[in-house]
Amino acid sequence: MDNVIWLIVAAGLLSLVYGALTIRQLLAADPGNARMQEIAGAIQEGAQAYLSRQYTTIAIVGGVIFLIVLFLLGLPVAIGFLIGAVLSGAAGFIGMIVSVRANVRTTQAASQSLADGLSIAFKSGAVTGMLVAGLALLAVAVYFAVLLGVGYELTDRTIVDALVALGFGASLISIFARLGGGIFTKGADVGGDLVGKVEAGIPEDDPRNPATIADNVGDNVGDCAGMAADLFETYVVTVVATMVLASIYFSGQDILFPAMVYPLAIGALCVVTSIIGTFFVRLGSDQSIMGALYKGFIATGALSLLALWPVTDLIIGMDTQMTASGVSFTGAELFYCGAIGLIITGLFIVITEYYTGTGFRPVRSIAEASKTGHGTNVIQGLAISLEATALPAIVIIAGILLAFNLAGLFGIAIAVTTMLALAGMVVALDAFGPVTDNAGGIAEMADLPEGVRDTTDALDAVGNTTKAVTKGYAIGSAGLGALVLFAAYTQDLNFFITNAADFPYFEGVDLNFSLSNPYVVVGLFFGGLLPYLFGAMGMTAVGRAGGKIVEEVRRQFKEKPGIMEGKDKPDYSSAVDMLTKAAIKEMVIPSMLPVLSPIVVFLVIGAVADKSAAFSAVGAMLLGVIVTGLFVAISMTAGGGAWDNAKKYIEDGHFGGKGSEAHKAAVTGDTVGDPYKDTAGPAVNPMIKITNIVALLLLAVLAH
Amino acid sequence: MDNVIWLIVAAGLLSLVYGALTIRQLLAADPGNARMQEIAGAIQEGAQAYLSRQYTTIAIVGGVIFLIVLFLLGLPVAIGFLIGAVLSGAAGFIGMIVSVRANVRTTQAASQSLADGLSIAFKSGAVTGMLVAGLALLAVAVYFAVLLGVGYELTDRTIVDALVALGFGASLISIFARLGGGIFTKGADVGGDLVGKVEAGIPEDDPRNPATIADNVGDNVGDCAGMAADLFETYVVTVVATMVLASIYFSGQDILFPAMVYPLAIGALCVVTSIIGTFFVRLGSDQSIMGALYKGFIATGALSLLALWPVTDLIIGMDTQMTASGVSFTGAELFYCGAIGLIITGLFIVITEYYTGTGFRPVRSIAEASKTGHGTNVIQGLAISLEATALPAIVIIAGILLAFNLAGLFGIAIAVTTMLALAGMVVALDAFGPVTDNAGGIAEMADLPEGVRDTTDALDAVGNTTKAVTKGYAIGSAGLGALVLFAAYTQDLNFFITNAADFPYFEGVDLNFSLSNPYVVVGLFFGGLLPYLFGAMGMTAVGRAGGKIVEEVRRQFKEKPGIMEGKDKPDYSSAVDMLTKAAIKEMVIPSMLPVLSPIVVFLVIGAVADKSAAFSAVGAMLLGVIVTGLFVAISMTAGGGAWDNAKKYIEDGHFGGKGSEAHKAAVTGDTVGDPYKDTAGPAVNPMIKITNIVALLLLAVLAH
Repeated sequence: MDNVIWLIVAAGLLSLVYGALTIRQLLAADPGNARMQEIAGAIQEGAQAYLSRQYTTIAIVGGVIFLIVLFLLGLPVAIGFLIGAVLSGAAGFIGMIVSVRANVRTTQAASQSLADGLSIAFKSGAVTGMLVAGLALLAVAVYFAVLLGVGYELTDRTIVDALVALGFGASLISIFARLGGGIFTKGADVGGDLVGKVEAGIPEDDPRNPATIADNVGDNVGDCAGMAADLFETYVVTVVATMVLASIYFSGQDILFPAMVYPLAIGALCVVTSIIGTFFVRLGSDQSIMGALYKGFIATGALSLLALWPVTDLIIGMDTQMTASGVSFTGAELFYCGAIGLIITGLFIVITEYYTGTGFRPVRSIAEASKTGHGTNVIQGLAISLEATALPAIVIIAGILLAFNLAGLFGIAIAVTTMLALAGMVVALDAFGPVTDNAGGIAEMADLPEGVRDTTDALDAVGNTTKAVTKGYAIGSAGLGALVLFAAYTQDLNFFITNAADFPYFEGVDLNFSLSNPYVVVGLFFGGLLPYLFGAMGMTAVGRAGGKIVEEVRRQFKEKPGIMEGKDKPDYSSAVDMLTKAAIKEMVIPSMLPVLSPIVVFLVIGAVADKSAAFSAVGAMLLGVIVTGLFVAISMTAGGGAWDNAKKYIEDGHFGGKGSEAHKAAVTGDTVGDPYKDTAGPAVNPMIKITNIVALLLLAVLAH
Repeated sequence: MDNVIWLIVAAGLLSLVYGALTIRQLLAADPGNARMQEIAGAIQEGAQAYLSRQYTTIAIVGGVIFLIVLFLLGLPVAIGFLIGAVLSGAAGFIGMIVSVRANVRTTQAASQSLADGLSIAFKSGAVTGMLVAGLALLAVAVYFAVLLGVGYELTDRTIVDALVALGFGASLISIFARLGGGIFTKGADVGGDLVGKVEAGIPEDDPRNPATIADNVGDNVGDCAGMAADLFETYVVTVVATMVLASIYFSGQDILFPAMVYPLAIGALCVVTSIIGTFFVRLGSDQSIMGALYKGFIATGALSLLALWPVTDLIIGMDTQMTASGVSFTGAELFYCGAIGLIITGLFIVITEYYTGTGFRPVRSIAEASKTGHGTNVIQGLAISLEATALPAIVIIAGILLAFNLAGLFGIAIAVTTMLALAGMVVALDAFGPVTDNAGGIAEMADLPEGVRDTTDALDAVGNTTKAVTKGYAIGSAGLGALVLFAAYTQDLNFFITNAADFPYFEGVDLNFSLSNPYVVVGLFFGGLLPYLFGAMGMTAVGRAGGKIVEEVRRQFKEKPGIMEGKDKPDYSSAVDMLTKAAIKEMVIPSMLPVLSPIVVFLVIGAVADKSAAFSAVGAMLLGVIVTGLFVAISMTAGGGAWDNAKKYIEDGHFGGKGSEAHKAAVTGDTVGDPYKDTAGPAVNPMIKITNIVALLLLAVLAH
């Protein structure tokens, strides 16, 4: 059984090997002509400058938190925090470094054939994807093994605390990366469009626009580094929360170790199937790019399902009887829960595609509403964004009901773990997006032949869909993952209360999570308001950052009139630099909101009432954040994707096509959707989880 | 003590007397010249036609439900349903009849002086307001007295069921009136603007626009009849739920009857203070219209606070000790809870004015964002709409904490009751809005001198603020009222379970409202999705209705080219008729969503799991609806109000003024805000409550 850990570590290392080999292969590809390399160089430089500064800021905040954790919870826990933060950062950083090198190579390959372009772009995404899944798995598995190796017992609180802190480290990177990246990318996008397309009347990606490099940098820091950090975090916290649940439910039973290792094993098997899946991505005779990507995804899903059976049998045993949270179940039932996780993933993809794809009613209805103006476009877009929450919520509801009936709360945790085990493949699809987006930009700026741009446009359109689909998956899994965290919070609390002799702080705490307890209602409301307030801050930040870009571009146009005539070169780096400072500054305060909220609620309710009420209110707050957060995030990401593609649908020649009044209205909708889908919406994911994980850490601190 | 009931009834009758006298006074005022009367006649005709058809449709649905209630729960309960429905409808209908006669008289009075215009418009609003409060009070008090009179015991389930059914009757009218009225008014507004302002380039309220009468009709059916039905309902259900709580908490104690009568007495005293308050509405030397209205409101609030002390002493007794939901308290503490309700009302008004008034940061930031285009206007508006939920939520949280600590759940119920007792005055302020809006329209259409229009514009601008403020109050009180309903649900359920010997259906039901119960989580999610789905349906319906208006107006312009030249008269009634049919058709399906949801959830979860799980899931669903519903409704109504006034702020000459690019962007924001603030947002209020009241009725049916 002990060997299982090493097999899991081996799977994690395999993903690093895959990454290294693929990077070598990518870098060997032709990087195009001098002009292309020059542009790509500017993007690389900007992206690195942004990430360096972002990580410097995070390092300061992280350093302070490290010291606090060290002081409050000791070295092993603080090291856990450090591992989570560093590896999450590394996954995003390496992924982005590859991405900003793959973009120009994709442009070059696209000048050969669609298949070549697809191959480079997808491989670049796959590097990020496999690094996310591999490093996340390694982080948890290796540190878990090390802690066991140095002599901690399986049920020792230090192991639980250290793993939770590891998740917290990842969370911290994630919220900064998501929010900072989101503000950067949409500040550049909104500001650049306003001043370029609207004021100066030059097309997107026109090299005369001083914000154009910043826009391309933004795609990478937002969709590549941001999403990587986001899913790294969800992966880690879900696996950790599942392990925590196992450690509480099966304490003192033979099944304890297998149950704690099982989520890691699921992660390991899915890393392998994801790597295999990448080889299925291949353009068919129908030349469908989406079809090629789905082939890879479906292969991964099917192989995972097949492999889950023997892995479950090996680790848990199909007939092994367990009891947790009052439900008895067997290993076979855990397998079914895993299968439910895979099915939920599939359904989320289908639903998101329905709401954001140009082939279906929602997007077309927005396009049609554009005929009557800006107002009706936005109204219909908002209606779709609200509507788009219903089916995902119902899928989540059905998933919870099924998994719970099979294997209780632990079954839900296993379903979510399996859902997240596919993160490698999903991130691969997502990180494909910014590469193709950049590839198109480079083709435009380097003035390559029309045909190349057509090919990159085709890739880019698919990239938009995969980005939207990934966001749906990310928020769905974040919501479910947070539920597992919430379960961990309640179980942990019960554990401390039951063992109050060892944890004197919890003496006499009488937990009442009932909805008829007003402190629970208060907690739900307070939790409910967090995603709203946080979303408002994110949207406002984009507005401000975009405004600064507008001023900067206007300044450059005024000081160097030669830019518009193509005689003078704009100063790309000053736009990048300004946006970097703005994004970093804007990300700090909203990021503190979810970190401080559980602590503030605990202290305030503790002062107004008592400890018991405070624990109940904090718990309810966690669920409140999940409930409204899920709806806010889904409506924003789906709505934004739908607006984006409604514009594309019109550009494809419907309702008057490019330049028509309908198109102008659709551009407005797209602009509105930008901060919705790329800043506020996605940043709600880490926000939900960070609130939950801080609450878990709070318990650890109080127990100490 | 028995005499108290008759005093309460007398207060209710007083409001009817006030209404009758004021109507006589209003009708005696000068209705202006023939052209004005002709226009007003068209609005009257349209409004009556709409309401007749709406009530016919509701009568059919209501008749079916009456029969179901009769069959399931017996005659007294069915009669309760009928009373609630009929009186709610009557309040809205009479209010609107007055409103569409006061509009033209306001125009005429405004040609004399601002004070005269204000007087007529406010009195018209006051009629609706006093009818809402008076009829609501009479409905509950008289039927309660009658049921006692015919021999039912205070604790008899029939009394509780009949009163709950009375609330349900009001709810049913309310959701139809809110949604139908909202779709009508915004369909006319959005459609009329699109085709008039944008396509034909004619100003708002131009008599050549065939949709202009429909637009004026819409103001009345939406803001007057719709809001009246909404607050009638909130009033009734809150008072009823408080009485139900009293009947459960104090069963078998001496305090039972006083505690049940106490909420009615609060209503009675506030009817009297509201009537007195109307006489304080008087233009001061500063000519501030808002100031005049606030004088009335503050007088009512202060007098209510003063009168609440002796009334509490008389009915409950300041030193009387009571215990409910585990908290012991005295009559004095109930008085403090009432004071909290008054303070919450005040805070809601202040907060809403901050978010929707032109004098503060939120509206100005939207106006400023309009400089850079449609997109940034909408982004900033959405950011404000999200942000605007935070303070109201915190006020609600603080109110719950304070009231609960003073007097438990019953204290919360008394706080909300007191908050709602001011409904008469609040509706008066709200119903002032459509009258002044119409008055301006009539001045424009009748081509009166510029000065008249200036006066009506000044009144209208204040009307916009009071409409926004009322919506904030309506949703805040709806949220809190729904919490009381939810408490009634849980207490009712406990009652049935405890007395399972008498109610065999509840035998063995093991209630678990804990957040760690997955059925509770599922219920929260399902409840959470309802406001989103409902909002989406409302927004889409407005889009469709507006589209039909566009087509109709285009058709008229095409068939009668003389209209634009002023040689031919447009066919106003065909636009009204079309919109009536559209609104009625669109309102039915979304209205059924909250009615059927509790039943469906109960049946589905009952089938998947068991009765206990089903009751828990339904309960959690109720709270889920409240949590997301509150945020959705506040963000929509506040955001819409802010967009509206950002446009007005620009029209006042800021950022380029009328006709500038910023103004165009602001018009887009206003259009987007229209269905937000006048259709989807306000319709969420009755939606929240109807879900809760259906759940209560479900319990009654199961107990039967």
